Amino acid sequence: MGGGRLETVSVDVEPPGPGELQIAVAYCGLCGTDLHIVHGNMDARVRTPLVFGHETSGTVAAVGAGVEGWKVGDPLTVMPLIWDGTCAACLAGHQHICQNLVFVGIDSPGGLQQRWNVPASIAVPLPAGLDLRTAALVEPAAVAVHDVRRSELQVGDRAVVLGGGPIGVLIAAVAREAGAHVMVAEVDASRRSRIAELGFEVIDPSSADMVAEVERWTGGVGADVVFEVSGAAAAVRATTALAKVRGTIVVVAIHSAPREIDLQRVFWRELRLLGARVYQRSDFERAVELLGRGVIPADALISGVVPIEETASAVADLSAGRAMKILVDVAGEGRA
Amino acid sequence: MGGGRLETVSVDVEPPGPGELQIAVAYCGLCGTDLHIVHGNMDARVRTPLVFGHETSGTVAAVGAGVEGWKVGDPLTVMPLIWDGTCAACLAGHQHICQNLVFVGIDSPGGLQQRWNVPASIAVPLPAGLDLRTAALVEPAAVAVHDVRRSELQVGDRAVVLGGGPIGVLIAAVAREAGAHVMVAEVDASRRSRIAELGFEVIDPSSADMVAEVERWTGGVGADVVFEVSGAAAAVRATTALAKVRGTIVVVAIHSAPREIDLQRVFWRELRLLGARVYQRSDFERAVELLGRGVIPADALISGVVPIEETASAVADLSAGRAMKILVDVAGEGRA
Repeated sequence: MGGGRLETVSVDVEPPGPGELQIAVAYCGLCGTDLHIVHGNMDARVRTPLVFGHETSGTVAAVGAGVEGWKVGDPLTVMPLIWDGTCAACLAGHQHICQNLVFVGIDSPGGLQQRWNVPASIAVPLPAGLDLRTAALVEPAAVAVHDVRRSELQVGDRAVVLGGGPIGVLIAAVAREAGAHVMVAEVDASRRSRIAELGFEVIDPSSADMVAEVERWTGGVGADVVFEVSGAAAAVRATTALAKVRGTIVVVAIHSAPREIDLQRVFWRELRLLGARVYQRSDFERAVELLGRGVIPADALISGVVPIEETASAVADLSAGRAMKILVDVAGEGRA
Repeated sequence: MGGGRLETVSVDVEPPGPGELQIAVAYCGLCGTDLHIVHGNMDARVRTPLVFGHETSGTVAAVGAGVEGWKVGDPLTVMPLIWDGTCAACLAGHQHICQNLVFVGIDSPGGLQQRWNVPASIAVPLPAGLDLRTAALVEPAAVAVHDVRRSELQVGDRAVVLGGGPIGVLIAAVAREAGAHVMVAEVDASRRSRIAELGFEVIDPSSADMVAEVERWTGGVGADVVFEVSGAAAAVRATTALAKVRGTIVVVAIHSAPREIDLQRVFWRELRLLGARVYQRSDFERAVELLGRGVIPADALISGVVPIEETASAVADLSAGRAMKILVDVAGEGRA
């Protein structure tokens, strides 16, 4: 892969090394970061050719020397973070923001391969009742669990999610499960219909007076929590106008350029703005649990499943905004 | 007052109303907000003529009907906030950011008068040993106490204060008393010398590589807390580069224009940015205690004491950056 070119190749299967599990990958979801990789936006970080993919599910195909607690056939997913354990962030207990973090599937080979060797330490077991297709959503759901946990959202809170893509919908679902009332702002009409069908309040920020609507919705108080998931400059400007006194703004999206923000409002209302990045192990385990309990609207999120040879057209569909979440059927099990 | 014109006038003294104390004002400090008022920047908010001034000390001159616990001669200061007690902020316990807050000395008559009637509820007693000149610093010191409290600074933390004016130095002193190591960034050389004499690390952000210096000072980790007290756009940009993983940035200064901020870094390091405005009663009482214990470098902060007729020239000196904190000797006790 490189320069936007995707190829499927046959390679010899290497056995798992000591401490590793070999995974028979079942499904691998495609994510916004994957699009950035394919489009070359991350060339400075990524070494090509790269096997990408970090939203995975599968079963154990082989167990490496010294690995305990796993046997062939066990269903699993992978938390794709490897930290150094020695930097200041790790020593302070924030391993997920290790200053030398290896993100598996970006900085090292990922899940878009039928046999994938990973350290057993990053494998996460799946319950027997969770189908592997749904389980491919554990990784993005863990992002949402982390974002909601970081926000310290309380039961009864009113939360506004700016951006109704997969992560926005996942945050909405996790926040609702945590007891919040949720409104999602999304410019795309078809996404808005789908989100409304899931029972969330929706608003079109391009036509409605979002500040007035949120004021009305919150009885004049403002939102307890605002999740910025859109990546848009206008959304950042809106965050400070939507949050209540001492309200919380969580920066989930990646903003590659500096953004203007109303610090006068941050001061005046004593707002709190928090960055939230990936997830901790407990977030991953909570995501497994929520998907197992059917709390996450997996079927509404998964807009397509394609064979591995069609990954390039799936990337094109996602880049054009024609899909929510597309899974690659890596094993070929789901083929007609 | 109005359009930059300051006048001293003689008026009849009104007795205190029910629930009020009449204060014989001793000293009244001049603050940045006062300069904004005099320069007309706050004309939309302020009704002129206005008796301004909100950094006060004095003694009780008369006790209104129904007021208990005070007698003539008691030393006191005033916490110049009156809240409605009914808005969402008040009901949530954040009375100091009441959505209809009356700031005494801005929205109602302040302390630059020899006899001043205020509700007894906003009077704060002073200990016998605290001289009234030093006590005029209680209000700005309470701002600093609130800012440090809001930051959740811990013993042993390394804090960077961007801006070495009176509030910056007060924050530095309060943070040091709370157990932190403190570095102050200030562009003015004479202010830097004065701050260094107080035992703080100082840095000139206009010539030094501040990010590299803070990296060095923190052993490569970054600052636990960054206080933005300067109001400068460049300082806002620096905050995100200076803070450690999960570090805290406190927005103390007023930024009248939207500011660019590196949200990528906020995300990447899971930073926390907090607005901090005025103070709560407990902050005010803590400020009284710290000044009483001599923890605040009052003498270094007070660069001059002038009679009330010289208020205009003091305002000019402060506006030109020729002074740190100037007190007005309202009672005329300190005159030669």
